[in-house]
Amino acid sequence: MKVTIIGSGNMGSGLAKQFAKAGQQVSLWSRNREKALEVAKQTGAEVLSDARSGASADVIVVATAYADAVEALKAFGSLEGKTVIDITNPLTPDYMGLTLGHSTSAAEEIAKAIPGAHVVKAFNTVFAQVLQEGPDFGKGQIVPVFYAGDNEAAKNTVKGLIESTGFAPVDAGPLKNARYLEPVAGLNIYFGYGAGLGTAIAPAWIKQVK
Amino acid sequence: MKVTIIGSGNMGSGLAKQFAKAGQQVSLWSRNREKALEVAKQTGAEVLSDARSGASADVIVVATAYADAVEALKAFGSLEGKTVIDITNPLTPDYMGLTLGHSTSAAEEIAKAIPGAHVVKAFNTVFAQVLQEGPDFGKGQIVPVFYAGDNEAAKNTVKGLIESTGFAPVDAGPLKNARYLEPVAGLNIYFGYGAGLGTAIAPAWIKQVK
Repeated sequence: MKVTIIGSGNMGSGLAKQFAKAGQQVSLWSRNREKALEVAKQTGAEVLSDARSGASADVIVVATAYADAVEALKAFGSLEGKTVIDITNPLTPDYMGLTLGHSTSAAEEIAKAIPGAHVVKAFNTVFAQVLQEGPDFGKGQIVPVFYAGDNEAAKNTVKGLIESTGFAPVDAGPLKNARYLEPVAGLNIYFGYGAGLGTAIAPAWIKQVK
Repeated sequence: MKVTIIGSGNMGSGLAKQFAKAGQQVSLWSRNREKALEVAKQTGAEVLSDARSGASADVIVVATAYADAVEALKAFGSLEGKTVIDITNPLTPDYMGLTLGHSTSAAEEIAKAIPGAHVVKAFNTVFAQVLQEGPDFGKGQIVPVFYAGDNEAAKNTVKGLIESTGFAPVDAGPLKNARYLEPVAGLNIYFGYGAGLGTAIAPAWIKQVK
């Protein structure tokens, strides 16, 4: 497959490495030509001098910052019928939020409606079936329960409550991270019902084991 | 711990079961008293006749539909200083979207800007370190790459590209599900940088193994 990657940062270079290793024909286009040449040297990718020559690829990957993505893609001319992979995340400068489309959450709205209470988001990514059957998914897999809130004492109470049930508590940060947890649940529900995987599934985080 | 659960549906009854099993003192409050009595019978929980008597609990869990949550909580009177667990998800009637706070995504904005191109969201939940080091997390764990898009042919191309690298492709549905995938990445970034877990982690979905 001919793959053009736009951007030569951490993500672009990582993708170039993986795609080249997989035997794909990789070309790079970057406003940082020096960095692109360095990545090319490491991966065997080609560096494009003209964006338009990259438009003939089977797949174009936009690996710039989100703020630069549209401008970079426009440089390729018509992309009619082209497969474009968007790998961007619209992050705030401190990386702790999204700039786009995610303005509130059920948890924050509830907290606003009952001021003084310490609202903690939790259990929303766990299917009812999983609550019925318990946290043990077999083969050493324990279902995590993510909890997010702004009051540390309340969070500790909730952590203890989760622990008492055998589910694995995972501190997911401040209450505004319900803006993450509710979409995680949305994706879980999509997988369970929309994609038909059923409800004996759960979102989790995996960790590299050396 | 004294735990009051508001709601006696699938989630409320599952939580009652797990909390009761954990030795917590569970009471239920539900507008469906018959259902609450049934759950109480199965779990040993107490059924409250008056919401205000439940407000003395250490933890109040709101397990109604999101649309009913605030009204239900208001019935408890002052919740000053109280720990309230919000387990709700603000789902659309077909369960395939969120009604609140999640109005667009980077992927959808990019797709709008390059009409005719087949934009596929992918790789956005994978840290650059993981791209550098590859998909094998050890102990049989393979890092998933979620992909979402509206054009099936383009999605198949991307699926093949992911497969060629050894990462595990997971079909995450239509492009609007980038509204889920970008927050999943946001939470991943929170865990990696905000919570200090480092970047050798990845979101995944686990499955019950009988």
